[in-house]
Amino acid sequence: MSIVARIEFDPATGAATGWTLGDADAPALLVTDLGATRGDGVFETASLVDGHVQALEAHLERLAQSAAMLELPAPDLAVWRDAVAAVGAGLTARGVAAGSLKLVLTRGVEGGRVPTGWVHGSASPDFSRDRTDGIRIVLLDRGYRHDVAATSPWLLAGAKTLSYAANRAAVREAVRRGADDVLYVSSDGYLLEGPTSTLVLRVGPRLVTPRVDLGILAGTTQADLFAWAEGEGFPTGYELLTPDDLAAADAVWLVSSVRHVAPVRAVDGVERPIDAELTARLNDALDARTR
Amino acid sequence: MSIVARIEFDPATGAATGWTLGDADAPALLVTDLGATRGDGVFETASLVDGHVQALEAHLERLAQSAAMLELPAPDLAVWRDAVAAVGAGLTARGVAAGSLKLVLTRGVEGGRVPTGWVHGSASPDFSRDRTDGIRIVLLDRGYRHDVAATSPWLLAGAKTLSYAANRAAVREAVRRGADDVLYVSSDGYLLEGPTSTLVLRVGPRLVTPRVDLGILAGTTQADLFAWAEGEGFPTGYELLTPDDLAAADAVWLVSSVRHVAPVRAVDGVERPIDAELTARLNDALDARTR
Repeated sequence: MSIVARIEFDPATGAATGWTLGDADAPALLVTDLGATRGDGVFETASLVDGHVQALEAHLERLAQSAAMLELPAPDLAVWRDAVAAVGAGLTARGVAAGSLKLVLTRGVEGGRVPTGWVHGSASPDFSRDRTDGIRIVLLDRGYRHDVAATSPWLLAGAKTLSYAANRAAVREAVRRGADDVLYVSSDGYLLEGPTSTLVLRVGPRLVTPRVDLGILAGTTQADLFAWAEGEGFPTGYELLTPDDLAAADAVWLVSSVRHVAPVRAVDGVERPIDAELTARLNDALDARTR
Repeated sequence: MSIVARIEFDPATGAATGWTLGDADAPALLVTDLGATRGDGVFETASLVDGHVQALEAHLERLAQSAAMLELPAPDLAVWRDAVAAVGAGLTARGVAAGSLKLVLTRGVEGGRVPTGWVHGSASPDFSRDRTDGIRIVLLDRGYRHDVAATSPWLLAGAKTLSYAANRAAVREAVRRGADDVLYVSSDGYLLEGPTSTLVLRVGPRLVTPRVDLGILAGTTQADLFAWAEGEGFPTGYELLTPDDLAAADAVWLVSSVRHVAPVRAVDGVERPIDAELTARLNDALDARTR
């Protein structure tokens, strides 16, 4: 079950003019599209829960920010918002209670001036085991220093680009080591993020996450969690964190748009306790969002 | 003027069964192809000169090596070789004397077992000015240490993947600085390669290039140049090189499959002499290849 809305662009100006629903199983991209030949584009993945596309405005804002970092044309967020709504409504009408919507914007065909864009919606896998039993992670070097976004912006650290081959290779390495997912560490020893997730630790009463100036993505789901947590009386913070902080934390989660809050039950093969009660509360808080 | 040959795969086994010539201006890829959504695939670019696809066996070998690094199915090189020949012959028949052929292999549609592959051929831009007048380059940090391929293979340094968004951003940074191209430097100060080229220096009578264990590509064009140079009595070598070596070199080139040998006439805004005579000999040697 999948649906695609293709964004339409004016061939003369490159401006988005609307969108059309199409068949996700029909070829839609040229082999010369720079998204396919160079990973030259940006994306977002939002979740659909019981008819609500979650954190859509945060995803749209981050899509625009990634596009700016790649010097892509600024996406017309009104058009994208409508296309997302149409895909979300289509999934819901077909009985999909838990879905994911991928928004993709590429630089279009080489030599042209018109980007390519689409919203692809599909039913989500069942992540309930990850959310309750937890996941096993390994720490892997990301290769970059913690300050790389400031020193070397052309590396696009912190932009959500289509160039994710290494992120997928890192997850294969995790599986090879008997784990499920990855937490990246900077070459100078600071905790960063997962390939498709944000790290959150509980340290006593506080929820903390790595600072966003480390060349990582500002987590949309983590932001919603922190807003909820502050309302519940948990202090929150953005910090420079190390593997020692991870080992000492009272609870560890990887947080993402579709899997939501996955408690970490092992790091590099060493089991650690999970906080089942707080994990359930966090996931319930995310599921209760109506936008 | 462009031609595409799409590789056909058996949907049950994923084995390549042949290829078909198609229309490069017709949509051919699904929006769920991991090449387009994750830059999850590999590629090669070979040049076509006067009917000869150059260094094809070296490109095919490197395609297979990149595929292995990404744990993609091994490409059936006999099928790819035939598809390349058909595209090359098609370009030549249409009067293209200088062309480029891009070979692309992606992981295919998410959740499937069948890769996607194609060979796209097109006429090349005229690079004669780059080859004679030279190019201006800037040194840019690649973010990784020189030993990253050994310590952190999941970063895929040295694989020619579709995840090239940062390579394109680096070239935009070069243009912003008034230059044409980039030479990457490791985070610990060693010369690496360009985003789509190999560095070659002349030091006295010797031609030298960075060692390939630095997480860089083994240059197909540089290999042909070195083979020619040894026949002509130039010693060659693979070395650890620094910006000081660059400044002290008698001549500097960026070497690539389609642009061939471009002499470097400025580094970070500092003009430097080019060796016009040797550059011309090198380009003539490349153009004279019949395979």
